[in-house]
Amino acid sequence: MPESIKSLIESRVSTGLYDSSRTLPDEVVNELVRLATRAPSAYNLQNWRFIAVRSEEAKARLKAAAYDQPQVLDAQVTFIVCGCLAAHEGLAQALQPSVEAGIFGQEMLEGWVAAATSGHENNFSKQRDEAFRSASLAAMTLMLAAEDMGLATGPMSGFDTEAVSKAFNLTDKDIPVMLITAGYAAENNWPQKPRKPLEQVLEIV
Amino acid sequence: MPESIKSLIESRVSTGLYDSSRTLPDEVVNELVRLATRAPSAYNLQNWRFIAVRSEEAKARLKAAAYDQPQVLDAQVTFIVCGCLAAHEGLAQALQPSVEAGIFGQEMLEGWVAAATSGHENNFSKQRDEAFRSASLAAMTLMLAAEDMGLATGPMSGFDTEAVSKAFNLTDKDIPVMLITAGYAAENNWPQKPRKPLEQVLEIV
Repeated sequence: MPESIKSLIESRVSTGLYDSSRTLPDEVVNELVRLATRAPSAYNLQNWRFIAVRSEEAKARLKAAAYDQPQVLDAQVTFIVCGCLAAHEGLAQALQPSVEAGIFGQEMLEGWVAAATSGHENNFSKQRDEAFRSASLAAMTLMLAAEDMGLATGPMSGFDTEAVSKAFNLTDKDIPVMLITAGYAAENNWPQKPRKPLEQVLEIV
Repeated sequence: MPESIKSLIESRVSTGLYDSSRTLPDEVVNELVRLATRAPSAYNLQNWRFIAVRSEEAKARLKAAAYDQPQVLDAQVTFIVCGCLAAHEGLAQALQPSVEAGIFGQEMLEGWVAAATSGHENNFSKQRDEAFRSASLAAMTLMLAAEDMGLATGPMSGFDTEAVSKAFNLTDKDIPVMLITAGYAAENNWPQKPRKPLEQVLEIV
């Protein structure tokens, strides 16, 4: 019986300590990213890209760009979750399968492309915000999917963006928004930390 | 039996059409936000805030600031999901319950506050990125929690940020990152749209 989402959300822990003796097949990495890309994005832009850092050599490169945090070596995989700028340029191609599936027509595709282009093409800040949103929505989906497979994850925003971009030959369109370590947790990780009381963060109007 | 996360992720649809004749108790709104705040954030900053727009009067205010999109009126609730700037200023208070729960000691709390302060206090761009990341991680958690409760959701980035801030008296520390409509779907919503093939978005190194 699958665990309920509610219990996974309530028990999920940002993990720093991994059991480096275990291995994880590439098929699981593929499946995590396949599920991550089911996250929503504006216009279905799918303005994200994932680099799965798996080899010892690539892990060492990433560790050097991530303030030497050791979990990058110990985790079975670390995802560099990128958000993509200028995504409107690829929107027609991204939406073509929706037309082919009969979800909407060519005219609507063209309307969306026109709207996205007019909103984004000269607005770098909007492109960047959209990249951060989409990449983060995909990242959270990936983490919950991993949890459901019995894997631990740890999101990291502490890394040198430029160094990561350089070390992995990212184009200037791909912004590394977050790193996510994933794999088998070692013992002695913390439990989930308490949250603020609801009345401090929620207002109903 | 709860549905598996995998099947919820695979079937979730960004919903634009709601059945406005149905009602949703405030308890469900509270529960959605309680679960959303279980999302991770850097240092456990919890740099987010939720305005649940429920009343007819507030819905009309939000619709005017969201390019008149009608789903804001029809959905049982629309969340204005904000990310908060200068969150390091509230970090000591946010982490105190972790010390009280014995998860780590006062010394570690002080170390984290010092690290977050030195990284964030004169870096507006980093504060803003962190606000977008945290708010989006919480937003995705909220959407999957809602799905698990049989509710539909629709994330919206198409709104006038300044108008929303003004209409809801947000402080200049609270950035509206995303709107999320939530409630009971009407008929004739689209199915989930196809995604790009994995090889276009994933590289294993």
